Amino acid sequence: MFIAKVIGNVVSTQKIEKFRGMKLLLIQPYINKEGKLEISGSSVVAVDSVGAGAGECVLFTQGSSARLTPTTKDAPVDAVIVGIVDTIEVGGAMVAKP
Amino acid sequence: MFIAKVIGNVVSTQKIEKFRGMKLLLIQPYINKEGKLEISGSSVVAVDSVGAGAGECVLFTQGSSARLTPTTKDAPVDAVIVGIVDTIEVGGAMVAKP
Amino acid sequence: MFIAKVIGNVVSTQKIEKFRGMKLLLIQPYINKEGKLEISGSSVVAVDSVGAGAGECVLFTQGSSARLTPTTKDAPVDAVIVGIVDTIEVGGAMVAKP
Amino acid sequence: MFIAKVIGNVVSTQKIEKFRGMKLLLIQPYINKEGKLEISGSSVVAVDSVGAGAGECVLFTQGSSARLTPTTKDAPVDAVIVGIVDTIEVGGAMVAKP
Amino acid sequence: MFIAKVIGNVVSTQKIEKFRGMKLLLIQPYINKEGKLEISGSSVVAVDSVGAGAGECVLFTQGSSARLTPTTKDAPVDAVIVGIVDTIEVGGAMVAKP
Repeated sequence: MFIAKVIGNVVSTQKIEKFRGMKLLLIQPYINKEGKLEISGSSVVAVDSVGAGAGECVLFTQGSSARLTPTTKDAPVDAVIVGIVDTIEVGGAMVAKP
Repeated sequence: MFIAKVIGNVVSTQKIEKFRGMKLLLIQPYINKEGKLEISGSSVVAVDSVGAGAGECVLFTQGSSARLTPTTKDAPVDAVIVGIVDTIEVGGAMVAKP
Repeated sequence: MFIAKVIGNVVSTQKIEKFRGMKLLLIQPYINKEGKLEISGSSVVAVDSVGAGAGECVLFTQGSSARLTPTTKDAPVDAVIVGIVDTIEVGGAMVAKP
Repeated sequence: MFIAKVIGNVVSTQKIEKFRGMKLLLIQPYINKEGKLEISGSSVVAVDSVGAGAGECVLFTQGSSARLTPTTKDAPVDAVIVGIVDTIEVGGAMVAKP
Repeated sequence: MFIAKVIGNVVSTQKIEKFRGMKLLLIQPYINKEGKLEISGSSVVAVDSVGAGAGECVLFTQGSSARLTPTTKDAPVDAVIVGIVDTIEVGGAMVAKP
């Protein structure tokens, strides 16, 4: 899984039937090589399965495992938010969240 | 999923039987690290499953999940367009589409 | 899928039983961020399932979907050529092939 | 699999039911192109399935295979620690561990 | 599949049960964008399924397909060596092996 920050959302009317009702969030990978919280990759569109909102720090899963949540079962989804991050500890110290 | 812009199409006569009738679009990942709409990766060939056309901003799925649409079922496909993007909102503001 | 150019082949005698009889081609991802045909990634070894030859421009599939052709069924293959490209059209214009 | 160093952990209260009880470690890919042990990629969050701790050098698996441990079975997990590294030998010589 | 050079091995005592008896080799992706044999990516740990040894040039498979060899069946493995490379031909000429 990767850590990301929710920065927005995406609306699509003309879409695959299985996407109906899914909340599509725009997220940014948000941890660098040194374990510091900063943008570290291109924006991804992930299905929300935990009630995440803009500005929150989340955990997301990619690939076939993204279909293993109740929300995304059997859907053509390759990225899903699986948790909202409370704390990140690196080297015994708490890392500030956004 | 990733956001992309449809920039063209690919024609192939000599191909795997399961590809017959599939529309192959050339798309470009189209959102950068800051959430701005601009080319952000190498061109990908994706199967269209929603009636997308040149110049449109779309959502595409990669990997095994790309086989989970009615159009691509059981086909050796690793990228499929699953929605046409209406709006993208970042930080409460609408991002211009192409 | 990605567009690639066939640049050579690979011979292996000591290999997994399921690879017997498979033609292993050396291909190079061959389209850049602007949709122009040029080398854009590291060389990949792909199984040929359509009768492709050196110098040809092809379409290849990666990941678990690479096992969905008659040639590669149930084999430990993660890249397969699924079509020979006839034409690529970008922005209404034909792109020259190699 | 890749070699990584455990640098911390992640706590999430609001998460997918299947994540309950899983230990989420923050790891960093930790071997470079020359086979030397140094940070070589962005931080990943992996489920621990072998009792790894901070500072240890581990082996982790990504993708659908990350669901093939008793700890991660059927869970939306895409990265899991599968072993603690004792020694790495490159070119006949032992490489120092962290 | 990708071409790699075997540069060493990894020993792990505390590991997932299914890894017992598996030979873990350290390999380096070993072909560049021009089809020349040189280091082209970060080191990977792959299970050996063909009896490969240090210094040899091999072919390896990644992702779920890495579980499709007799050695790796149902194991949490995402990289496996599937062949030892005898010859690589690029543009009609033989490429020197390590």
